[in-house]
Amino acid sequence: MARIVMKFGGTSVADLDRIHNVARHVKREVDAGNQVAVVVSAMAGKTNELVGWVQAMPKVAGAKASFYDAREYDAIVASGEQVTSGLLAIALQSMGVDARSWQGWQIPVKTDNAHGAARILDIDGSELIRRFEMGQVAVVAGFQGVGPDNRLATLGRGGSDTSAVAIAAAVKADRCDIYTDVDGVYTTDPRMVPKARRMKKIAFEEMLEMASLGAKVLQVRSVELAMVHKVRTFVRSSFDDPDAPEMSDQLNPPGTLICDEEEIVEQEVVTGIAYAKDEAQISLRRLADRPGVSAAIFGPLADSHINVDMIVQNISEDGSRTDMTFTVPSGDADKALEVLAGEKDVIGYDVVQSESGLAKISVIGIGMRSHAGVAATAFKALAEKSINIKAITTSEIKISILIDGAYAELAVRTLHSVYGLDKT
Amino acid sequence: MARIVMKFGGTSVADLDRIHNVARHVKREVDAGNQVAVVVSAMAGKTNELVGWVQAMPKVAGAKASFYDAREYDAIVASGEQVTSGLLAIALQSMGVDARSWQGWQIPVKTDNAHGAARILDIDGSELIRRFEMGQVAVVAGFQGVGPDNRLATLGRGGSDTSAVAIAAAVKADRCDIYTDVDGVYTTDPRMVPKARRMKKIAFEEMLEMASLGAKVLQVRSVELAMVHKVRTFVRSSFDDPDAPEMSDQLNPPGTLICDEEEIVEQEVVTGIAYAKDEAQISLRRLADRPGVSAAIFGPLADSHINVDMIVQNISEDGSRTDMTFTVPSGDADKALEVLAGEKDVIGYDVVQSESGLAKISVIGIGMRSHAGVAATAFKALAEKSINIKAITTSEIKISILIDGAYAELAVRTLHSVYGLDKT
Repeated sequence: MARIVMKFGGTSVADLDRIHNVARHVKREVDAGNQVAVVVSAMAGKTNELVGWVQAMPKVAGAKASFYDAREYDAIVASGEQVTSGLLAIALQSMGVDARSWQGWQIPVKTDNAHGAARILDIDGSELIRRFEMGQVAVVAGFQGVGPDNRLATLGRGGSDTSAVAIAAAVKADRCDIYTDVDGVYTTDPRMVPKARRMKKIAFEEMLEMASLGAKVLQVRSVELAMVHKVRTFVRSSFDDPDAPEMSDQLNPPGTLICDEEEIVEQEVVTGIAYAKDEAQISLRRLADRPGVSAAIFGPLADSHINVDMIVQNISEDGSRTDMTFTVPSGDADKALEVLAGEKDVIGYDVVQSESGLAKISVIGIGMRSHAGVAATAFKALAEKSINIKAITTSEIKISILIDGAYAELAVRTLHSVYGLDKT
Repeated sequence: MARIVMKFGGTSVADLDRIHNVARHVKREVDAGNQVAVVVSAMAGKTNELVGWVQAMPKVAGAKASFYDAREYDAIVASGEQVTSGLLAIALQSMGVDARSWQGWQIPVKTDNAHGAARILDIDGSELIRRFEMGQVAVVAGFQGVGPDNRLATLGRGGSDTSAVAIAAAVKADRCDIYTDVDGVYTTDPRMVPKARRMKKIAFEEMLEMASLGAKVLQVRSVELAMVHKVRTFVRSSFDDPDAPEMSDQLNPPGTLICDEEEIVEQEVVTGIAYAKDEAQISLRRLADRPGVSAAIFGPLADSHINVDMIVQNISEDGSRTDMTFTVPSGDADKALEVLAGEKDVIGYDVVQSESGLAKISVIGIGMRSHAGVAATAFKALAEKSINIKAITTSEIKISILIDGAYAELAVRTLHSVYGLDKT
């Protein structure tokens, strides 16, 4: 017997048939003797419809700008999950499973007042636990809570993953199963590298690096939360047949477990290769090497909502001038250059150079901490394929390499192979 | 300055343009210096869509019957009004009007636990009043409240009218304006009688008789509630131009005021003629005239959800046998006969006779109480047109006459004219 939180996204609950399918997954876990809470998103398309109305309303009402009250946005958009949770509760009841829906304010899921992008402050899990012990399934509307103003607050896009992990922490669940349209986390993108393998386990820290690098399986926020509260999070597919025999395997069902590194007995040195295409590199040459120069560059870029990724600063030759290189998404490159031109006098650089169409390849693995030579292996492998490295940054568990975009696929395949990740 | 509750139904908020139109009506009242709460229904079609999902879910999930949990029904269906109230708040804000949305549980509107058809037990109007005094418009999701189980409860179809009147009572509003797709209450159906006049005022009791007789402007429940709390209720059109000069007339805008009879200075004897087509008459002949015979007849009919309307019992000739006549909607006649046949031994009647295709014409007016000869006028007028009367029932303020359906229109026109109701 285990206590499990199961989370299903919008495509998994897109219509009544799919909601029934979700109910079958839930019933399987209940029949296996587990205590279950389910967290659901809005039916696919519903959130977009509601957001569309909110965004259009001010202009229809004659306003010049499309400014709207985020508190009203929340009241409107949260209704999508409310509907799904009620329908899933009905589906479960129809299948003989005791269930009831819970809206964020009923549990309550308490958030801060940052409407539209609220953070969860506290969840009282006591009533849910009482119901578990009575054998009742809790069907929770994801993505929402209630603020200190007693008004609905949504957690922002992808917030249902965060809801699920937070509820799993609040009820001390043994596992939080995130059902998604992929069947787990792979060593790299299987569409690019057919030899990519599904991992059985990945450490929270590794998943964070994978996610922020574009592995888009789970929201970064939810992984951070899972890491802080040590919520064992399991990524699996909602499109698998709910009644397939392997799905009932309580110890080792198909999917990828994201867990504490201590739970991963045989840690590999490198666990995955991530990539981001369409990066642009911008270099500022002969900057004044003085305190505050970084802030003068990146402050205005942040104010313009430009996401800066890699940052490399070289040690200056004579202690007075330095070079600064960083990357932004290609689409933001022109805007970034414009911002920098406007700040030229404040920053005090000589020339600015830029190059688009680059790719960032990242090698990730907690094992790097205790293994030397991991970076050298990558550099050697890329050199053998004549791939030129434009910039390098490293962290304790990650090496990121900037290369010409045309070589992205070759580089990923090469590194995937050289670190022994290929499927056998 | 007045405190006004304004209520708009589903067709008035069917899309963003119409919501904008509603906002213009609200702004007009705010600009005139009034304190305003607005009660809204779900966008036209939304409630049906949500109810359709609820009803279909059990079968999709494999249940044999389409039984569903009324508490989940409520959680799902109440989301429709939640969306409209948020959108209207945004529209008002966009037009420079301070406004916020309120869901039933936030005010709170406390109901009993009869999910799907809950009754309002109590509304705390203090916070709304505090906001009025700050100049803020309250946009309230109609049709809903929160039960003692802390779950959403809906009031049943048409419940938004009831919400509006109940909120008007709670905040001690001077008036509750019900905006609808007609521009007031008429002396009879204007589609049948072009000479029908819009009434300026009608007493609660008269409106109750009009409404239950099919004048379908306002839910009976909401009129009952208005009568109990003496909420002056004003029926007006949401399709009038919000900025037409006459709409700004604070004393005498276009529409019909439903109010206490004391407020109606020049009470007419008869105020309206109502009708119900497609009635069927059922007569039980030579019943045993003993205590409990009425219960033996109408109990089983009620259990079969057959609405019995007029009931006429003749005094028995010899004190042992009597006749009982009553009407039901034509569509229910066969079912009623079937029920009566099954209960024949219990009831103890001799024969049953029935006739379909009848019409019930009702003459309504509080002035009848103090005027003799009102009924005689009707009988004489109908006799002059050779219309045969099949049954008669009377109350203090109403005379109902059952006739052949083919004469319904002629009878209504004749009575409308003879009581001086024709437009001049």
